[in-house]
Amino acid sequence: SANYKVAVLPGDGIGPEVMAEALKVLDKVQSEFGFSLTYSHHDVGGVAIDNHGTPLPASTLAGCEEADAVLFGSVGGPKWEHLAPNDQPERGALLPLRGHFKLFCNMRPARIYQGLEGFSPLRADISARGFDIVCMRELTGGIYFGQPKGREGEGAQEKAFDTEVYHRFEIERIARLAFEAAQGRRKIVTSVDKANVLQASILWREVVIEVAKDYPDVTLNHIYIDNATMQLIKDPAQFDVMLCSNLFGDIISDEMAMLTGSMGLLPSVSLNDQGFGLYEPAGGSAPDIAGKGIANPIAQILSAALMLRYSFKLEEAAQAIERAVSETLAEGFFSGDLFSSEAKHPVQTTAQMGEHITNRI
Amino acid sequence: SANYKVAVLPGDGIGPEVMAEALKVLDKVQSEFGFSLTYSHHDVGGVAIDNHGTPLPASTLAGCEEADAVLFGSVGGPKWEHLAPNDQPERGALLPLRGHFKLFCNMRPARIYQGLEGFSPLRADISARGFDIVCMRELTGGIYFGQPKGREGEGAQEKAFDTEVYHRFEIERIARLAFEAAQGRRKIVTSVDKANVLQASILWREVVIEVAKDYPDVTLNHIYIDNATMQLIKDPAQFDVMLCSNLFGDIISDEMAMLTGSMGLLPSVSLNDQGFGLYEPAGGSAPDIAGKGIANPIAQILSAALMLRYSFKLEEAAQAIERAVSETLAEGFFSGDLFSSEAKHPVQTTAQMGEHITNRI
Ligand SMILES: CC(C)[C@H](C(=O)O)[C@@H](O)C(=O)O
Ligand SMILES: CC(C)[C@H](C(=O)O)[C@@H](O)C(=O)O
Repeated sequence: SANYKVAVLPGDGIGPEVMAEALKVLDKVQSEFGFSLTYSHHDVGGVAIDNHGTPLPASTLAGCEEADAVLFGSVGGPKWEHLAPNDQPERGALLPLRGHFKLFCNMRPARIYQGLEGFSPLRADISARGFDIVCMRELTGGIYFGQPKGREGEGAQEKAFDTEVYHRFEIERIARLAFEAAQGRRKIVTSVDKANVLQASILWREVVIEVAKDYPDVTLNHIYIDNATMQLIKDPAQFDVMLCSNLFGDIISDEMAMLTGSMGLLPSVSLNDQGFGLYEPAGGSAPDIAGKGIANPIAQILSAALMLRYSFKLEEAAQAIERAVSETLAEGFFSGDLFSSEAKHPVQTTAQMGEHITNRI
Repeated sequence: SANYKVAVLPGDGIGPEVMAEALKVLDKVQSEFGFSLTYSHHDVGGVAIDNHGTPLPASTLAGCEEADAVLFGSVGGPKWEHLAPNDQPERGALLPLRGHFKLFCNMRPARIYQGLEGFSPLRADISARGFDIVCMRELTGGIYFGQPKGREGEGAQEKAFDTEVYHRFEIERIARLAFEAAQGRRKIVTSVDKANVLQASILWREVVIEVAKDYPDVTLNHIYIDNATMQLIKDPAQFDVMLCSNLFGDIISDEMAMLTGSMGLLPSVSLNDQGFGLYEPAGGSAPDIAGKGIANPIAQILSAALMLRYSFKLEEAAQAIERAVSETLAEGFFSGDLFSSEAKHPVQTTAQMGEHITNRI
């Protein structure tokens, strides 16, 4: 039967705890669906700084290269916050990984789960309408990687600069994936730009309009980034797929994640054009609750499900995990982040959540 | 007695209606406080495209140059939306005005007014805590004006680019104004950047830390733009002054305006180092309700108050206007945007709101 190699990078904070539950769930689906996974574990982020002096050691990168997919936990914490921003675990691990594997397509779904509307920071009538949005973020271009980037001059005239740059081919490939995603959903793509100010956005808009012609069943809308941050708050239900540049996607995906009020449920995937991907929860390393066994493992578990879907084309196994998660929540089992006095069951630990989900597969 | 020249640019949509009320209020304070204003009216935005073929005619620019301050309404509307983004009223009028007069300091206050918490799109327990934030946005630098900016190449390799660039002196002058604003408020400056990715942000952070040394009574925090959009939603009350680059300020100021749920109350000012300023409401031209006499004139009236304060140093007259606005709202007089079934009085027209405020001066 098929065997896939997975590089497991638990990282810092709650990463190792929630990763352990994701691996339990993966063990169960392997036996149920007749495939096998081989894991290799590697340090990344702060723990890699401590053990190897760098957030992304060569051995970790080599381990990822040998694998068919990367399952990533989370990185960062107060211990490494004194470092220069550039050397910190998040930046120092994620950007090189994205660049090295050319993971240009970042998908971050965000939705309000039924019954969890009350956790959304939105007004009750807005959260009651719910929303279900995917942010398609370009992840290897734009101002993150554009050259020149640097610093020059002295005194008052000293200046620092970054280049926002997009090539037609970069916009086209992420746009196509956005339209394809929309075809499997509510068939609306909203392209986020700042075409009233940025040349890169003007090209972005032109190319997206061009690509849209190949997807006549999908409605295309354009919105400026400033207005997008407002409309997301006022009426998130209007959006289906939001197509964003690297920087705007960074902002929009975090905003929509926060609007769900349940970041512990949100997975994400970053893909290259070979289907190789890095899978990680949307939330951070949550150092304040790390090591207590109380973190919500669902975002990590759903990230594992996305890995089965996108990198290994194991759609049934992916759905089995997603169904088990939905059932667990529907039956009223919640970790502390989503617990309320109305919950049917007492607050669940990380391990208990993992067991509920494993048992339902 | 002192005389000041004001260039009045009503613009499009609700601009002319709300401007009329602001001028009524200004007439009243002139007689009460013993100064005089001389107005010159000029076309700007869509109406200027229609009458002169360009959103910022030379005659309008000349009129602004002769004035001591510019009172701006709002520009844009569906009639001009078919134009290329670069030629549209908003961009074509605002960016050249900011650049020409070197209006580097944009202040946008946003707060939840007591009694109007229900209009905020935030969950009731969050809006009940209220917030009162000023966004200090750098307005003549960054990626809006940085060079090079353009397009190159052909086919799939065609690329478009913009340059985010900040000089030390640009960061320093806006940072000083942010700390000074904080000294008159709750003494917290939160500097928004993306120092984990952008060189310009790394310099931004360095300079802000340097400037902070001259304001030991003010607490300085740093936050990444992606986290800022989240924290604003989760807990806006934590912020006092938010110090932002041009692009990040565009996003943050709009987000916080939306979070108040009462954009019709929010004024703004853009200043240069001579105290010359452009004063405008935060909301847009609202073409859907234009010409009906129902728009809320308060943002325009409060913009006029800011003009008296910042450009003419007429603090008492400015406060008289602000007090009259607060009283009008406290007494339960609301235009349609803020009307609810619990209001004491029937819904008020634009002119009625203007009268209530004028009468209370
Ligand atoms: C850590 C940082 C460089 C990164 C980004 O800006 O892309 C993070 O915010 C994210 O969204 O994954
Ligand atoms: C119209 C546009 C160029 C402008 C900006 O981006 O600055 C507007 O959004 C604003 O915030 O005043």
